[in-house]
Amino acid sequence: MKKLNALYAQSGGVTSVINATALAVIETANKSKKIGKLLAGKNGILGILKEDLIDTSLEKKTELKKLLYTPGGVFGSCRYKLQDYSNQQREYKRLLDVFKAHNIGYFFYNGGGDSQDTTNKIAKLTSDLGLSIKCIGIPKTVDNDLPLTDNCPGFGSVAKYVATSISEAGLDVKSMSETSTKVFILEVMGRHSGWIAASSALGKTNKEDPPHIILFPEIPFQKTKVLKKVRSTVKKYGYCVLAVSEGTRNKDGTFLSDSGSSDAFGHKQLGGVAPIIAGLIQENLGYKCHWAVSDYLQRSARHIASAVDLKQAYAVGKAAVNFALSGENAVMPSIVRIKEKKYKWRIGKVALSKVANVEKFLPMRYISKDGLGITKACNNYMLPLIQGEAFPPYKNGVPDIARLKNVLVKKRLKKFPIKN
Amino acid sequence: MKKLNALYAQSGGVTSVINATALAVIETANKSKKIGKLLAGKNGILGILKEDLIDTSLEKKTELKKLLYTPGGVFGSCRYKLQDYSNQQREYKRLLDVFKAHNIGYFFYNGGGDSQDTTNKIAKLTSDLGLSIKCIGIPKTVDNDLPLTDNCPGFGSVAKYVATSISEAGLDVKSMSETSTKVFILEVMGRHSGWIAASSALGKTNKEDPPHIILFPEIPFQKTKVLKKVRSTVKKYGYCVLAVSEGTRNKDGTFLSDSGSSDAFGHKQLGGVAPIIAGLIQENLGYKCHWAVSDYLQRSARHIASAVDLKQAYAVGKAAVNFALSGENAVMPSIVRIKEKKYKWRIGKVALSKVANVEKFLPMRYISKDGLGITKACNNYMLPLIQGEAFPPYKNGVPDIARLKNVLVKKRLKKFPIKN
Repeated sequence: MKKLNALYAQSGGVTSVINATALAVIETANKSKKIGKLLAGKNGILGILKEDLIDTSLEKKTELKKLLYTPGGVFGSCRYKLQDYSNQQREYKRLLDVFKAHNIGYFFYNGGGDSQDTTNKIAKLTSDLGLSIKCIGIPKTVDNDLPLTDNCPGFGSVAKYVATSISEAGLDVKSMSETSTKVFILEVMGRHSGWIAASSALGKTNKEDPPHIILFPEIPFQKTKVLKKVRSTVKKYGYCVLAVSEGTRNKDGTFLSDSGSSDAFGHKQLGGVAPIIAGLIQENLGYKCHWAVSDYLQRSARHIASAVDLKQAYAVGKAAVNFALSGENAVMPSIVRIKEKKYKWRIGKVALSKVANVEKFLPMRYISKDGLGITKACNNYMLPLIQGEAFPPYKNGVPDIARLKNVLVKKRLKKFPIKN
Repeated sequence: MKKLNALYAQSGGVTSVINATALAVIETANKSKKIGKLLAGKNGILGILKEDLIDTSLEKKTELKKLLYTPGGVFGSCRYKLQDYSNQQREYKRLLDVFKAHNIGYFFYNGGGDSQDTTNKIAKLTSDLGLSIKCIGIPKTVDNDLPLTDNCPGFGSVAKYVATSISEAGLDVKSMSETSTKVFILEVMGRHSGWIAASSALGKTNKEDPPHIILFPEIPFQKTKVLKKVRSTVKKYGYCVLAVSEGTRNKDGTFLSDSGSSDAFGHKQLGGVAPIIAGLIQENLGYKCHWAVSDYLQRSARHIASAVDLKQAYAVGKAAVNFALSGENAVMPSIVRIKEKKYKWRIGKVALSKVANVEKFLPMRYISKDGLGITKACNNYMLPLIQGEAFPPYKNGVPDIARLKNVLVKKRLKKFPIKN
């Protein structure tokens, strides 16, 4: 019997360790005697719809190994949500055509909540049609907002980056504060949930350490309270550092960054909540402010990835392939915390139907009473996730990265126009 | 004869390796039999005027050793320019009083152009008065704009951070570009000179690698040309990455970031040229843009410091003390490049009078013909400066840092009100 091929794709915003998951899928599939080739969708599910399938067997093993150290999504990713099957059967039919044309028996989709939903829909369809295709979701998201897994691969590394960066910048501000900048604001990702914002406090070992104030999407912006705390912190320590989530909201639920700023010529400027908070502080308190927006830097900072995160990113990829080989369908490997004090974890298994479209917000017990910091429970939860360093090799002073050929397999189907 | 004490102070914007210079000064002074205590000005020259002098002999050696790994200015820094002696003798007289009261025979001032000017003025005065006080300037600036030294301690590390960050973020944008962000903009420091902006290209190994466009303060902003290149780059590679200096200017010399932006409520927003460029691109080309402003993160990123930079930061501190011990006055250790191909350097010596108040801009031969990139000559100059990694030790997932006691010596003089 001819071996069935496997198909892997990356979806949504990438992380600094998603390629470690890709490597695990490739290596585990290659070791198996049941799986033929491991193909990868170019730019995620879009590449599958377009029949742009990368043949990973044509890559050099030495180059593939570098995926452990290469941030971004090496096969390309996309933001593309499949419609419900009941509304839009055309795309599902196409996916099945592609699966059939390329002899796909295993489908692995690596992403966040939306992607788990997509995988679940495809699994349901193939199963309804009696097709023997195993569909496995693989978790990934810097936002750490997937349910039923203790944490998400990608989060630990962004947390380590944010905690380190704010500690370092805090030392800078502190040294300059007598005559210059007194307030520093770092804007971090997490539009809907404050996991990343919370992680900014992981480098704190005493009250004086930065950040002194954290703004979460979960807590409506309290202007008076924040200004008051900025002032008292500057009075006490000479300076004040804030970590603010890009998703910081007004009481009415609108984002602070959506206030529609424009320059002197009336040109619209693109968001960023940090400059708004800086303006507010300078206007009301007169302190000189500096601000940084780390944006993509934080989620691509492979150079300061967490070793625990990297291991987990690899482990979920490996587990996904093993689940498929053992006949599982419509499941996702999860990370289960066995012990908190001396952190231990193992891989678990959850049904995609339970993961899809559920967002896990930062629980209130992780946010301090005044809404501007984290609790000990939050620290206990997060600290294990940023442990250990996993430095990439350097070449000519910068991290070395994988350079894949990404050769497409020959198309066997007609063109498929994307209509979404 | 009673030993003379030495006095060290940090000045201006700090770097990720200025504390390595401090450690070198402390260690070299402690080894010498001629020098008594090594005192440090709290918050730079201000602390000397206020007689806030830190007794470094009270610190634990194990803690001092951590200065090699601790960013920021551990004794505090300041932005404070002494007036000309002819205009304002009061402050100079006070400095001499403090020197005398604390038996200072050696003065080391660690900073950029302004600080070298200050040191030179003090040296001239003590020498005119026949006082036996050796005044030595020590170079430091992320801006790399001091003359008569091949490069400045602090620059190599920020260059390594910027080159790495833009390479990493570039991989992120590239993976997302089919359906999401097509343009990414990283704003970097260097208000007057484009050294840091230029360093963003050090991770490029071929034309497709980011950054595709660099905006320098030295080249007036060419709107049409930039937009055209953004469009052609997106057409060619699917995405475009820009590194923009905070000092990017209009033809009339005004900063782009000074366009006086305000939010919907008329509140003034604080600068940042990246959001302005992003708005321009989105408005004219319709591409989805993301932008990051690294601000203090870049100059405090000790976690990714250059080993060459760290060595040089230590070497200038050590040389400064040795110069003073051998009777030199009004000089600054410089870094001399012996070989370019197989990079070799040594410590040189320059007169402060020649360094003071001269800014070294990025030479035109380092900027490519179209004004939007760097030349091979620039790459050859900069690449050696980012070589080698010098990772800090980590504790609980974040870099370990020195926590000094910074105990002040007993005051012997009356209060001195700062009037500047």
